[in-house]
Amino acid sequence: MLPLQLHPESHVPLYIQIRDQLRSLVFSGVLRPGDRIPASRDLARQLGVHRTTVANAYAELEAEGLIHGHVGRGTFITGAAARTPQPPAPATAAGSDGVRWESLFADERGEEALSRLLPQIPSGAISFVAAKPSAEHFPLDEMRACAQSVLRSDGQRILQLGSSDGYGPLRQALLEFLRSEGLAVREEQLLITDGGQQSLDLLCKAFLRPGDAVLMENPTYPGAIAIFASARVRTIAVPVSAVGGNDARPREPGLDLGALEAALVQNRAKLILLTPDFQNPTGLTMSIAARRRVLELAAQYQVPVVEDHIYARLRFTGTPLPSLKALDRVGTVIQLDSFSKVGFPGLRVGWCLAPERVIERLRLVKQITDLHTDQLAQAVLAEFTRRGGFARHLARMRRVYAARLAALEAAMERHMPEGVHWTRPQGGMCVWVTLPPGMDSSELLIHARERGVLFAPGRYFFFQSPQPNTLRLGFAAVEERKIARGVAVLGEVLRQQMRRQERSRRESGARVSLV
Amino acid sequence: MLPLQLHPESHVPLYIQIRDQLRSLVFSGVLRPGDRIPASRDLARQLGVHRTTVANAYAELEAEGLIHGHVGRGTFITGAAARTPQPPAPATAAGSDGVRWESLFADERGEEALSRLLPQIPSGAISFVAAKPSAEHFPLDEMRACAQSVLRSDGQRILQLGSSDGYGPLRQALLEFLRSEGLAVREEQLLITDGGQQSLDLLCKAFLRPGDAVLMENPTYPGAIAIFASARVRTIAVPVSAVGGNDARPREPGLDLGALEAALVQNRAKLILLTPDFQNPTGLTMSIAARRRVLELAAQYQVPVVEDHIYARLRFTGTPLPSLKALDRVGTVIQLDSFSKVGFPGLRVGWCLAPERVIERLRLVKQITDLHTDQLAQAVLAEFTRRGGFARHLARMRRVYAARLAALEAAMERHMPEGVHWTRPQGGMCVWVTLPPGMDSSELLIHARERGVLFAPGRYFFFQSPQPNTLRLGFAAVEERKIARGVAVLGEVLRQQMRRQERSRRESGARVSLV
Repeated sequence: MLPLQLHPESHVPLYIQIRDQLRSLVFSGVLRPGDRIPASRDLARQLGVHRTTVANAYAELEAEGLIHGHVGRGTFITGAAARTPQPPAPATAAGSDGVRWESLFADERGEEALSRLLPQIPSGAISFVAAKPSAEHFPLDEMRACAQSVLRSDGQRILQLGSSDGYGPLRQALLEFLRSEGLAVREEQLLITDGGQQSLDLLCKAFLRPGDAVLMENPTYPGAIAIFASARVRTIAVPVSAVGGNDARPREPGLDLGALEAALVQNRAKLILLTPDFQNPTGLTMSIAARRRVLELAAQYQVPVVEDHIYARLRFTGTPLPSLKALDRVGTVIQLDSFSKVGFPGLRVGWCLAPERVIERLRLVKQITDLHTDQLAQAVLAEFTRRGGFARHLARMRRVYAARLAALEAAMERHMPEGVHWTRPQGGMCVWVTLPPGMDSSELLIHARERGVLFAPGRYFFFQSPQPNTLRLGFAAVEERKIARGVAVLGEVLRQQMRRQERSRRESGARVSLV
Repeated sequence: MLPLQLHPESHVPLYIQIRDQLRSLVFSGVLRPGDRIPASRDLARQLGVHRTTVANAYAELEAEGLIHGHVGRGTFITGAAARTPQPPAPATAAGSDGVRWESLFADERGEEALSRLLPQIPSGAISFVAAKPSAEHFPLDEMRACAQSVLRSDGQRILQLGSSDGYGPLRQALLEFLRSEGLAVREEQLLITDGGQQSLDLLCKAFLRPGDAVLMENPTYPGAIAIFASARVRTIAVPVSAVGGNDARPREPGLDLGALEAALVQNRAKLILLTPDFQNPTGLTMSIAARRRVLELAAQYQVPVVEDHIYARLRFTGTPLPSLKALDRVGTVIQLDSFSKVGFPGLRVGWCLAPERVIERLRLVKQITDLHTDQLAQAVLAEFTRRGGFARHLARMRRVYAARLAALEAAMERHMPEGVHWTRPQGGMCVWVTLPPGMDSSELLIHARERGVLFAPGRYFFFQSPQPNTLRLGFAAVEERKIARGVAVLGEVLRQQMRRQERSRRESGARVSLV
């Protein structure tokens, strides 16, 4: 039996795990030229995975020339394997250079799920992978005019070393914009950052030491999982359920407030990280009662709440709810915000609202992290906001995304087989899909990719108890016709996979009865 | 006797320490309205500081209305002190809000020296504080044309979510530029960052755990001191001496290679951080023999060298020396570079050259730190470099800065009293000044500031064994006439201070002989 060990909870797809481990066995000499390897069906049974998973791994190894199939005889390690002294990857890892880098790195991290959300999309593919804005709606002429204007009026200051709390005109424009939305914020309560991901890094540096505990929604944004893992912070899961329990135990979908309180009782948490509006990845929104309860708990247990507000302005239907920050009477909320979702993620500008004492500290941390945020981007966004462009763009994008969400929902209704559930967000950029139990969305992705359709498997978003039968569809950057086509393909591939699963279940049942 | 405790090694000037501690004594009720406080001369003697230091503290407290001097009787706490229930600073610190933030922060950090190098300069002042480029020479028209061009040709991509290793066209432009300088770098060996400070942060995350040791020049760049301190990394000093020993033990100025080797023997260092060209703050450059020796030691002890290369292109005279990276045959060097010193620090763009294995890791760390660097800044700099603007601007700025350095040196020769020494850099942005023993540049700064001239006291740059009689003059952003005027003022103030010191030495000598 081959000594393969799979990690289903890993972000690395199973077929890649199998491929890489088999390759290692060849290069380490455990498998030699001429050795026969198990039929894909047998190895699949041994590993407890679908046969397609093994077939995919074999296909890649065959493409590399390491294995070869002979009709009627089986699959064998080729002679080429012997002539390749080392695989390409370990060559750079072990190093022809003077330093054994692996032994010097602070930890043994693999590729993050985050990497897989920033992929190179094959041209022609329909990608629901990212939660990012629609580039074809960027107001390029207006942005160009803003760039011209600020470089003309304030070029020397923009290009010179700046201030760690942000470029003055952007700070002013933002305070005014926030005031127009009904949030009275003083200048000392605002820090400009490079966006939501950096804000998390700054919070991590300002508040957390290795071993400290943070309460987070599970599933959540992979960038939060990654930064806390890298800082060796303990992340404690507060479940967010998309499907309302089961028939026996029906439950409100969303954040489990009972679990939040239990986690607060059981852990000395330093922070609670929540996304009340259009949560990533589920698209769910917390009710106002739930928001009030969260603030009560935060006050009671004296734990600050970090509110991720980056999607909140993208509400298409329903009544806007006050943010935790707006409801906060005692100053326990740190609100993270950004232009990335409502504007332009290529400009790395976000901001942070918090009590002065916290902003003061975050400013020092920001300074040692990168001195300050890029000032050309800040100036262009300041001018864009000052001219009312931000408000106009937002209004326009709400309509665009609302239409895309409607198209997605219509296509889902039409193409998804029975037993598939999905969330019904009132805004944001994502819909969260739950496949029937036993399905694996990573497997589904392999087949969907072959048909030119991509999405994010649910496992990227869990830092505990991953649910392999979930996936996220980011709809904002996909135009309506492509949404319809993409979902149709997903529906077909899913039906195929369900049929295959059904068949193999029946087959293995048959085998069992033969034994 | 007043229970005051001064910390001469702190970055906080002594007079501020005295002011704040006296204020606390008033607000805590230890000192009450009507209490008499010691004459400045007496308190100075008690604390072992110059009388002016205490006088400065008293002047500020008097301006706040907390103390008042009565001719012939002494200085008293005023009645106003009683009516001010709490000082302004502690009010926000203790917090009227619900959370005791101080208890939640990861550490107890005060203001960093770094903050003091990014100050709001009073208008009209002559500031030698920062090492930053000359803003009036920024090629604004050209930059505006570049911004127009890239937003027109590639606007959608620039404003959309990008890649963690950098914007493609900038990567290509940089590789070509580096090749034109004679450095053959492969694409896999390059990572775009937000500048030198972020590169240090990324290295810190990729390589260092709390307690790990890094060897650094002492004095060095305060941003390096700050980021390693915040990560709880041990920094081990390798002395850089500006003055060549003394007459009894003459020594080559620069990095102490013997101390470097001793530190490598005594510590399991993870990294050696060096600035071979125009070191900040001393302006010194390592000889080629010293560079070769550093690489030998690095190979022998298997410790990577991080080479800060951000000033290297600013050579005005003498022969350019190959960088550590260029001399490196085995791949132990990680080179940090940036547009900030040679171009525009307001655009936060730098880069990192390293073996592929390291870049791969740094890319993952970059991603969890801020996803990617701002793309508008990257695109503008790519276009600027591609058009040859970078090379042209660099050639021009070398001439500008050479003239400024010459003006500084001429003014120093003319105005500095005997016993003052300074480095003679062949490039860069800083000259390092050593005052006669016993002088304190922080004291000097108080008086210079009153006359409208600012500089950076040497203590900001030491993380061990600070030399209070040192200071850094950043000349690049100061035009020649202001340089002449500023140095003349410094010379005058310094002579005054030396006379005062001489007098007080004689006086205390006299007192001693009276006793």
